[in-house]
Amino acid sequence: MTDTTTPLIETDAAIIGAGPVGLFQVFELGLLEIRAHVIDALPQIGGQPSELYPDKPIYDIPAIPVCSGQELTDALHKQIAPFAPTFHLGHEVSTLQKQADGRFLLESAQGLRLLAKAVFIAAGVGAFQPRRLTVPGIEAFENRQLFYRVQRPADFAGKHVVIAGGGNSALDWAIRFATQEADHRPASVLLLHRRDGFQATPASVAQMRALCEAQQMQFMVGQVVGFDASGDRLAAIEVMGPDGVTRRVPLDALLAFLGMSPKLGPIADWSLDIERKQLVVNTETYGTNEPGIFAVGDINTYPGKKKLILCGFHEATLAAYGALPFVFPGKEVPFQYTTTSTKLHKALGVSADGAAAK
Amino acid sequence: MTDTTTPLIETDAAIIGAGPVGLFQVFELGLLEIRAHVIDALPQIGGQPSELYPDKPIYDIPAIPVCSGQELTDALHKQIAPFAPTFHLGHEVSTLQKQADGRFLLESAQGLRLLAKAVFIAAGVGAFQPRRLTVPGIEAFENRQLFYRVQRPADFAGKHVVIAGGGNSALDWAIRFATQEADHRPASVLLLHRRDGFQATPASVAQMRALCEAQQMQFMVGQVVGFDASGDRLAAIEVMGPDGVTRRVPLDALLAFLGMSPKLGPIADWSLDIERKQLVVNTETYGTNEPGIFAVGDINTYPGKKKLILCGFHEATLAAYGALPFVFPGKEVPFQYTTTSTKLHKALGVSADGAAAK
Repeated sequence: MTDTTTPLIETDAAIIGAGPVGLFQVFELGLLEIRAHVIDALPQIGGQPSELYPDKPIYDIPAIPVCSGQELTDALHKQIAPFAPTFHLGHEVSTLQKQADGRFLLESAQGLRLLAKAVFIAAGVGAFQPRRLTVPGIEAFENRQLFYRVQRPADFAGKHVVIAGGGNSALDWAIRFATQEADHRPASVLLLHRRDGFQATPASVAQMRALCEAQQMQFMVGQVVGFDASGDRLAAIEVMGPDGVTRRVPLDALLAFLGMSPKLGPIADWSLDIERKQLVVNTETYGTNEPGIFAVGDINTYPGKKKLILCGFHEATLAAYGALPFVFPGKEVPFQYTTTSTKLHKALGVSADGAAAK
Repeated sequence: MTDTTTPLIETDAAIIGAGPVGLFQVFELGLLEIRAHVIDALPQIGGQPSELYPDKPIYDIPAIPVCSGQELTDALHKQIAPFAPTFHLGHEVSTLQKQADGRFLLESAQGLRLLAKAVFIAAGVGAFQPRRLTVPGIEAFENRQLFYRVQRPADFAGKHVVIAGGGNSALDWAIRFATQEADHRPASVLLLHRRDGFQATPASVAQMRALCEAQQMQFMVGQVVGFDASGDRLAAIEVMGPDGVTRRVPLDALLAFLGMSPKLGPIADWSLDIERKQLVVNTETYGTNEPGIFAVGDINTYPGKKKLILCGFHEATLAAYGALPFVFPGKEVPFQYTTTSTKLHKALGVSADGAAAK
């Protein structure tokens, strides 16, 4: 997927994972004047709390009696803004290789090439990947007629499109396709879900039902249980309804939005010490067995480990100090407090009395 | 100071120190259904941030881009409210002794007697004690004519009172005495400070100056350099002005508010492993060398230790789990998340959708 003509980005630190701990890693590195690039497989920052429970209240973030997953992400995003990290979203890191000069080359399946002095793996339960249909053989059509992400909506103009799923992604794509201008619109849009009930915002559900009413799209209850191929072409899917009857649904394209599931993925291949799918770290710097590679948050393990966001914040803090010898070899960096250090105030963009400088 | 007639309080956990980490210790213990008593030498909760920098902005509490020391305390106080800890404020723990049944007996100089299954030392830099006057011999008058705290203001009615200090405590006591009803008022109130400038709120400074204008009190610039005793009575203090002249100021009582300074104090005598005035802990449970005694926050040390509030939050969390075998021997306590556990929602007093139950 990548080649050496892709521009190479050189940076102090690379953070794999833009969940709460990865985001706070940016902050602690920033206080030490270490600039970071953040890579995440998801198309947005926030990791699990934003992806899996954006609206659920969290009660155990210290000094925040209650917040939602999305509010937590927003607060951290605001907190790290002074350090202006570069985000590479929708990038799954595929390889991580130590170079002759001690730095690490990271490459993503999407073509990113990053050379970093220190690497922080804050990948939580791993990279989130779209849940696949479990119909044997259907994977042969992936990226030709079966899609788990939409990259170019215009590709579906004039086609018979079936969208499987009952969450916001499925409904919002169905609505978008059904309401597109005539020359971009699919020939037909069918939403398919295993039950007549949705895990989506009430507004989207209402809009979808109104579009069905207006015959701009259709909704069908059922599950994909098989398919018809003609040659190397997917001609139709077999859908079993709640009545037990299997119906044949012809189509040109099948878009499935069945949620995301995490995969440890290539991290398992980077010759780091692993114990029950977690990266083994020390509790002094949260470094792995590979000097210069740190692991923070849910992906690491050590005696006493609890998979809690607040523990990841501590780990990211000590890991930032642990990275100093790799980023600034031989330099003494004094320990300073954000309450009193004018140097840190400058880095944070605030004046001595606490007001934002801009 | 204490005797066996003082009622003995039995509890699961005793927390020494009501600073941010001691407060969050209540929360993490509460999630595990461990009830706690909290003891602090200061008359209010909040520890260093509330005592030393209540108005200063803090920038490195995760997911809180900025807050003052007091706001941090208030947020933590609110967060632990569901667990209704008992606070013993103004109590300096003097002894900590292991009993035959494995529990720990804590006694304070002020008469508290507490029997706990687990002890959490979250004492920061130690107990805060009023800074003393450095005039040799003057300590003989402490608690008779020289006071560092006011317990019964009525004791000073009709007396010539000198108040030393330039902070809010000094000014606010001077104002309070000078504006008291006639039959409770001192015969005279003199505020003494080394310079004509104050570390107090502008409103207090303005009120003090107005009272001086109205001759209800006086202000004098100078420092106590000696005293006159007649018999065992403090008759006057010698005050040196910025002009180098020493003046004799007769008085009945001297109240000195010179700030607070921390003392490790009796903790040093509890046969716990100490390294450079810090308690040595392991990073699995943040337990000390004495099973059942944990140390969290600024008072502990371990490889990689940084004296940061956010690190103390993590330490308190793992220490709570570390205390389980002492509080509930032999009981399996499952690890649960506040986002999903209905048991934790009940403990926190919230319903499943996140609304407060009352």
